[in-house]
Amino acid sequence: MSPERLPEGLEVALGDRAYPIHIGGGLLDRAGEILGPLLPAPRAVLVTDSHVAATAHADRLEGSLRTAGIAVQRIVVPPGEGSKSFERLSWLVERILVGGVDRKTALVALGGGVIGDLAGFAAAITLRGLPFVQVPTSLLAQVDSSVGGKTGINTPQGKNLVGAFHQPLAVLIDVDTLNDLPERELRAGYAEIIKHGAIADAAYFAWLERHAAAMLAGDQALRVEAIRRSVEIKAAVVARDERETSGERALLNFGHTFGHAYEAVAGYGGGLLHGEAVAIGMVKAARLSTRLGHAPAEAAERLEAHLEALGIATSPRRIRNEGFAVDALLAAMGRDKKAEAGTVRFVLWRQVGEAFLTARVDPATLDAVLQDDH
Amino acid sequence: MSPERLPEGLEVALGDRAYPIHIGGGLLDRAGEILGPLLPAPRAVLVTDSHVAATAHADRLEGSLRTAGIAVQRIVVPPGEGSKSFERLSWLVERILVGGVDRKTALVALGGGVIGDLAGFAAAITLRGLPFVQVPTSLLAQVDSSVGGKTGINTPQGKNLVGAFHQPLAVLIDVDTLNDLPERELRAGYAEIIKHGAIADAAYFAWLERHAAAMLAGDQALRVEAIRRSVEIKAAVVARDERETSGERALLNFGHTFGHAYEAVAGYGGGLLHGEAVAIGMVKAARLSTRLGHAPAEAAERLEAHLEALGIATSPRRIRNEGFAVDALLAAMGRDKKAEAGTVRFVLWRQVGEAFLTARVDPATLDAVLQDDH
Repeated sequence: MSPERLPEGLEVALGDRAYPIHIGGGLLDRAGEILGPLLPAPRAVLVTDSHVAATAHADRLEGSLRTAGIAVQRIVVPPGEGSKSFERLSWLVERILVGGVDRKTALVALGGGVIGDLAGFAAAITLRGLPFVQVPTSLLAQVDSSVGGKTGINTPQGKNLVGAFHQPLAVLIDVDTLNDLPERELRAGYAEIIKHGAIADAAYFAWLERHAAAMLAGDQALRVEAIRRSVEIKAAVVARDERETSGERALLNFGHTFGHAYEAVAGYGGGLLHGEAVAIGMVKAARLSTRLGHAPAEAAERLEAHLEALGIATSPRRIRNEGFAVDALLAAMGRDKKAEAGTVRFVLWRQVGEAFLTARVDPATLDAVLQDDH
Repeated sequence: MSPERLPEGLEVALGDRAYPIHIGGGLLDRAGEILGPLLPAPRAVLVTDSHVAATAHADRLEGSLRTAGIAVQRIVVPPGEGSKSFERLSWLVERILVGGVDRKTALVALGGGVIGDLAGFAAAITLRGLPFVQVPTSLLAQVDSSVGGKTGINTPQGKNLVGAFHQPLAVLIDVDTLNDLPERELRAGYAEIIKHGAIADAAYFAWLERHAAAMLAGDQALRVEAIRRSVEIKAAVVARDERETSGERALLNFGHTFGHAYEAVAGYGGGLLHGEAVAIGMVKAARLSTRLGHAPAEAAERLEAHLEALGIATSPRRIRNEGFAVDALLAAMGRDKKAEAGTVRFVLWRQVGEAFLTARVDPATLDAVLQDDH
């Protein structure tokens, strides 16, 4: 069940919807050569945001596609989480339709998680489904959101409550794009990398404890290795539970029930990046595991020490002076879409590398973990 | 490959997404008993429009669900094609989310094609997919749009260009609802019934020639029989080509490439009902088949005579004094989502009961058929 390794990446094993993930440097310039044989027709709509469009990435990708004989139309959306809205979605879909697409025209999403989620959802619903390629440019999107087919937008009721499962034809991860990434975003994206070690692979977690600092500082070989291993873990989970029905895919939400609540209370597009919220959330989940007697205190301490050593804050109060009201956090959790009939499910762990899904957590313990903020 | 017959309906054979279609009188009062065992949890959101909500149907359905222990929240949308918009979709999805749904809450669509398409699409994208039940109340929705999983909305670029394939858990067709239907809507809906005979079953076509007048006049046994046979034909096609990839499902679009063009030029929500446009379109498709030498002239004449005998207009000029500009019709066809790379495909026939898909039609012949309007 583990994904097949390609020479420069791996494959997500989803039967007739299996797809390759290419990982390496210089891939933007080879996009035409790699994607040409995969696209149903030599026509593409390139969706990106104005930040990415201002770098050389969009021109390199577009040039490479054109050289391979692929006609490209470019659509640029405003950057930031605010673009994951019904308004921007309808604008984007109408722009795509006005361009004269048919069911064989591919949508190519170049950007971070916002672009991948928005363009992927637009691909899922335009003409009831267009082929779609992910070219993630942020660390977070490269190791997490670009793989697995989840697409969607936000509403006033919460993040990602509206969307579709729509698997891409391929994912192209060019690690060169990380060189343009702000330091803060790089660190936030790292939270999803350590998450993969935390939930599924203690040896990988230990490897990251040794190498994460050098990787974040710019070592390209370490970046490729870490991204490959993270994507491998995610792809294997997705292959076994594509639509999050068995509970296994839910393990990827380690830190996310807490994290989404902190994000919601901080306000989307506000002071807290998704990865930063997940880092806080993972530490809360680890402490909750300890308090409930599921895991040794050392596991939570090890996770916290590792994140802090990398300059990734794990204490909500260090991020916001006034802290986060527990009532507001609990209310936000009730609206998490994994909530079923009012019961919030948590991903906890037994030790580093072994996560599991709980049915119910007693409110007093949950409250204590939310209050606890040293 | 033909669908299984249930005691009071049939089954759409789609493997683990197979679902039953119940057809008969009095089914609204038995909805709780029929749906209870099928829903993943005893919670439902009933979506209907203000026309249907003003009849007894919504109360009968809701009462029956409540008696079966199913909690029901009702959401009423404005009637008419205008509700198939991004604006109404986002409004509906947010109303559903505010009500506190989870992934086991079922959406029940009670109404005509607009409600089924809109609520079905909302079900497809809310929490990335909610279970969904179709309770069609118009003849058109009962024999066509409620079966097969196509959901969607319109944009300024055209009808149904945005949507999802989302199969229902069940379809409940209560023929009692037809008694409330305006005469004009009943006749328009009939176009999709005769279409099923036209594309796939000459004996059924002949049966309809004999019985359609009595059926439209109110004979309930004939209504059940015609709906059952039409749905059976549609379900068999859908089971073989769920996502319209092999070309077979496209046969259900007999009359629709022309029909959509007349609808678009008339203006949505304007003077031409969908079924009326399809009636005109089928006659155009039949005449095009004759002109291209695919079918005898008698076939087109027989279809036209049958529709006219029932009071269903087949001449665009009889519907609109100024007629329809050929240029505008051709432009509208280019935007049909079955168009692939600029080539419009037509469903034609060789004789009554035998439709096929063409790759390309020469422009002069197409032009002549559009001009020809006696």
